[in-house]
Amino acid sequence: MTRRDTPTLTLADIAERLGARLVGDADRRVSGLATLREAGPDQVAFLANRAYLKDLPETRAAAVLLHPQHGETCPTARLELDNPYLGYAALSRLFDPLAGRPPAGVHPSAVVDPSASLGARVEIGPSAVIEAGVTLGDDVIIGPGSVVGADSVIGAGSRLHANATVCHGVVVGQRAILHSGCVIGGDGFGFAHDGARWHKIAQLGGVILGDDVEVGSCSSIDRGALGDTIIGHDVKIDSQVQIAHNVQIGDHSALAGCVGIAGSTRVGKHCMLGGGVGLSGHLTLCDGVQVTGMSLVTNSITEPGVYSSGTGAMKNAQWRKNAVRFKQLDDIAKRLSRLEKGRDG
Amino acid sequence: MTRRDTPTLTLADIAERLGARLVGDADRRVSGLATLREAGPDQVAFLANRAYLKDLPETRAAAVLLHPQHGETCPTARLELDNPYLGYAALSRLFDPLAGRPPAGVHPSAVVDPSASLGARVEIGPSAVIEAGVTLGDDVIIGPGSVVGADSVIGAGSRLHANATVCHGVVVGQRAILHSGCVIGGDGFGFAHDGARWHKIAQLGGVILGDDVEVGSCSSIDRGALGDTIIGHDVKIDSQVQIAHNVQIGDHSALAGCVGIAGSTRVGKHCMLGGGVGLSGHLTLCDGVQVTGMSLVTNSITEPGVYSSGTGAMKNAQWRKNAVRFKQLDDIAKRLSRLEKGRDG
Amino acid sequence: MTRRDTPTLTLADIAERLGARLVGDADRRVSGLATLREAGPDQVAFLANRAYLKDLPETRAAAVLLHPQHGETCPTARLELDNPYLGYAALSRLFDPLAGRPPAGVHPSAVVDPSASLGARVEIGPSAVIEAGVTLGDDVIIGPGSVVGADSVIGAGSRLHANATVCHGVVVGQRAILHSGCVIGGDGFGFAHDGARWHKIAQLGGVILGDDVEVGSCSSIDRGALGDTIIGHDVKIDSQVQIAHNVQIGDHSALAGCVGIAGSTRVGKHCMLGGGVGLSGHLTLCDGVQVTGMSLVTNSITEPGVYSSGTGAMKNAQWRKNAVRFKQLDDIAKRLSRLEKGRDG
Repeated sequence: MTRRDTPTLTLADIAERLGARLVGDADRRVSGLATLREAGPDQVAFLANRAYLKDLPETRAAAVLLHPQHGETCPTARLELDNPYLGYAALSRLFDPLAGRPPAGVHPSAVVDPSASLGARVEIGPSAVIEAGVTLGDDVIIGPGSVVGADSVIGAGSRLHANATVCHGVVVGQRAILHSGCVIGGDGFGFAHDGARWHKIAQLGGVILGDDVEVGSCSSIDRGALGDTIIGHDVKIDSQVQIAHNVQIGDHSALAGCVGIAGSTRVGKHCMLGGGVGLSGHLTLCDGVQVTGMSLVTNSITEPGVYSSGTGAMKNAQWRKNAVRFKQLDDIAKRLSRLEKGRDG
Repeated sequence: MTRRDTPTLTLADIAERLGARLVGDADRRVSGLATLREAGPDQVAFLANRAYLKDLPETRAAAVLLHPQHGETCPTARLELDNPYLGYAALSRLFDPLAGRPPAGVHPSAVVDPSASLGARVEIGPSAVIEAGVTLGDDVIIGPGSVVGADSVIGAGSRLHANATVCHGVVVGQRAILHSGCVIGGDGFGFAHDGARWHKIAQLGGVILGDDVEVGSCSSIDRGALGDTIIGHDVKIDSQVQIAHNVQIGDHSALAGCVGIAGSTRVGKHCMLGGGVGLSGHLTLCDGVQVTGMSLVTNSITEPGVYSSGTGAMKNAQWRKNAVRFKQLDDIAKRLSRLEKGRDG
Repeated sequence: MTRRDTPTLTLADIAERLGARLVGDADRRVSGLATLREAGPDQVAFLANRAYLKDLPETRAAAVLLHPQHGETCPTARLELDNPYLGYAALSRLFDPLAGRPPAGVHPSAVVDPSASLGARVEIGPSAVIEAGVTLGDDVIIGPGSVVGADSVIGAGSRLHANATVCHGVVVGQRAILHSGCVIGGDGFGFAHDGARWHKIAQLGGVILGDDVEVGSCSSIDRGALGDTIIGHDVKIDSQVQIAHNVQIGDHSALAGCVGIAGSTRVGKHCMLGGGVGLSGHLTLCDGVQVTGMSLVTNSITEPGVYSSGTGAMKNAQWRKNAVRFKQLDDIAKRLSRLEKGRDG
C-alpha cells in the first residue's frame, strides 16, 4: 500500500465540501489541519470546545472552522458552521492519506479461491487469503495478511486493515472498517460438562455486522452458538473489545476500549459503554444506556441514564483501610441499626 | 478452506451416535439443530433448561432432545437422554461445517521449513509458515496466515485457525483448538531495574498446553522466564485472556473472556474464572475455586467455593455519593465504634 | 527462523561478561541457567531474593550468582555481584536462543515494496509485507507474517515477532521489541455525533515509539487524531494492553498486562501501572506514580506514590451482603452523623 500525498485545497473548496460559510480569502491554499495552538499558516484549525476559546486570538492557522458566535473574535479567515465538531470530522476525512488512492488490484501473492466473487475495484493486499465462496462487494479493500473465511460476505466499500481475520460464514455490511488484529467470527465459548470434563459445543451460528460498523485493533466478536451474533448499523467498537456469542448490539451504540460482553446479552440502540466495562451474560440493556468506565453490570437495565460501579482511586494507604472496612460493611450497617433502635427506644 | 455442506441425518442415526432413546419416526431426515422456538420441521431442537419448557408444546422441530421426564409433553418425535445438554453438545458437533472435510494438504503458498516433520493428513493453509524443527502430528490443521515457531510441537488432531501464532519452543497437546489472533509463547514480562532503567530478562522457558485445550481469539499465553508456563488438560480459555509467564492452570479449569493472570500464579483443577477476573502474581488457588466476573484476587485461596469483589452497578448519581463515602469508610467505622462505646459506657 | 543451539560458556567467560568476581573453577563449562532448586551440574543458578536463601545449601548448580554477603554459605563456585538480579538479567541474555543467530536475509515469499529502504543485515521472514516508503534500520528483524505499513520507520536493532502489525506512518525507535499480534498505529476511536449517527474523524496523527520499547503480545497502540501518540524511551508494555490516541507515556514507565489508557492521557516517567489498570482520558499522572492492579483512575495524580481502588475479593456469600450495603453507604453515613449529633446534643 502507498499513502497518497496530502492534498492541497483552497478555502473555497473546503467551504463548499463542508457546507460552511467562508469569511476570508477564498483562494488561499491549505494542506492540512491542526489544533488552534499548533496550526501553521498552511493549515486549518477548528474551535469545537469552549475550553480552547483562549487559543483563538493567537492562532497562526490560515483559517478557523468555528461556530458563527465566535466569528468576530477570529483573527484570520473563518469557516462558519453550526456544528464545528462535525465539520472537523468532515475536514479530517478530506485530508485522510488512505482515502482517494486508486485501488491497487489483487496482489500476485494474495491467494484468492477461484470460487470467490470479487466486485469492481477490489484491492487485495500481499499475503492475504480469500477462501472458497467468499463475496467481496465493490471497492472492498483487504489489507496485507488478512484472511476472509469460507462463504463470508464483505459489503461494498468496506475495508480490512492488515492482519485482520474474518472467519467463515460471517456477513459484514457496507462501509465497515475492521482494524488490524481483530477477529470476527471466532468460536463462542460453549462447553457442556459431564461432571468430569468439558465437551465442546460446536458454534454453528455466524456473525452479522451492519453497515458503517467499525471494529478496533485486536478486538474479537465471537460467532453465535445457534443463531447469529448481531452488531447493528453504525456501531463503533474500539480496540481490545470482546463480544461473546449471540450478543446483540443496537444501532448507533459505541463501545470504548477493553469492553467485555458475555453471551446472549442485548444492548440497545444509542448506548455508550465506557472503557473496560463488563456486562454479564443474558442481560438486556434498553436504548440510551451509558455505563461509565470499568463498571460491571450484572442485572438488566430498563431505564435510560448513566450507570456506574466500583470505587474511585485513592492513595494506597488510605485504600487499604477502607477496603478492609468494606468487608465489614454489612456488620457496620447492622450495628448502626441497633444503635438507632437503642436511641429511639 | 471450504466448509462442507450441512449433513443430512436420520433420527435413527442421531439416536445411535448420541446413545439416545428414540421415540418417533426413525427414518425422518434432519439437516440441522435450533432452539425449540426457532427450529423448523427439518431440524432437531433440545430442552436442557427448565426455563424453556414453556416452548416445548409449540415447537415445530422434527424431534426434540430431552430428559425422559419431559417425554410425555413432547408434541413430536423425541430423543431421550439423561443429560440433554451433553446431548446438545454432541449433536452440535455432528453438524459442524468445519468437521469431516477431507484434508486439503499443504497449500503451495505455505512456507514449510524442510526440517519440519509433518504427520499424516496434515493441512497447512495459504501463507502459513512452519519454521525449522517443528513437529506437526497427524491430522493437524494449520489455518491460513498462522505461524508455528522453531522447534514447536503440535499434537495430533489439533487445529490452529487463521492468523494464530505459536512461538518457538512451545508444546501443544492433542486435539487442541487455537483460535485466530491468539499468541502462544510470546515473551513473559520480565525486566530488572538498575535504579535508572530496565534490563530485559530473556524468557528462556516455554509453554506447554495439555490435550483438549482451547484458546480463544486474541488471547495470549506467555512463555516462562526459566521453567515453562503450563496449561493442563481440558482447560478452556475464552477470548482476550492474558496468561503471564510461569502460570500453571490445573486440568479442566475454564477461564472466561478478558481474564488476566499475573506471573507464577497457580490455579487448581476444576476452577472457573468469570469474565474479566484478575489474579495477582505468585498466588495459589486450590481446586474447585470459582471467581465471579471482574473480581480481583490478591491473596491465595485455600478453600473451594465462590469468591467475588467489587460493587454492583447503580445509577451514576447514587454511585457518586456512595463512592465518596467509600473513601470515608474507615472513619465511619471508627465513629460507629466510638458511639457504641459511649452507649455501653 | 531457527533457534541457535544453547551456547556453552566457561565460568570465566560469564564472570567477564557480567563483571562479576568469580570464586571457583574458571574453566568449568555451563550451558544454561535455572533456579537454585532446579539447576543441574551444567547450569548456573542465582540468588536475588532472600526468600530463596534456604535453597542455597542444597543447590546442585555449577555456580551461583549472588551478592558477596552470601558468598560464604555457597556450597559451590560463585559469581559475586552487587546486584545479582541485574546479573541474572544479563546472564539470561547470554543464553537467549534467539540472539546471536546469523541474519537469514529476506525470505523469497516476503513482499518488499521496491521503494522501501533496508539497512545492513536486515532479516525479513516468510509471508511478511513491507509497504511503500518504509525504512528498516540495520539489524532489523521482521518476523513471518508481520506487516510494516507505508512510510513507517523501524530503528536499528528492532525486532517484530511473527504476525505483528505496524500501520502506516509509525516511527519505532532502536532496539524495540514488538511481540506477535500487537498492532501499532491502528485508528484512534474518534467520531462526531450529529444527534442521530456517528461520523468518523480520520486519525491523521501517527505513533512514535522511543528506543528500547517493548510491546507485548496482542497489545494495541492507536495513532493520534491530529498529533502523535508518543511512547517514551525504555517504556515496557505487557500483553493485552490498549493505549488510545494521543496518549503520552514518559520514559522508563512499565505497564502490566491488560492495562487500558483512554485518549490524550499523559503518564509521567518511571510510572508503574499494575495489571488491568484503567486510566480515564485527558488525565495527567506525574512522574513516579504506581497504581495497583485493576484500579480505575478518573482524576489526575499530582503526587508520586501508590494508588488503588476497588475492594478485595471475599467469599461470595459475604460479598453479596456487603455489596448491597455499598449501595446504602451514603445513607449509612448520614444516619451515623445524625446519631452523633443526637449524642452530642
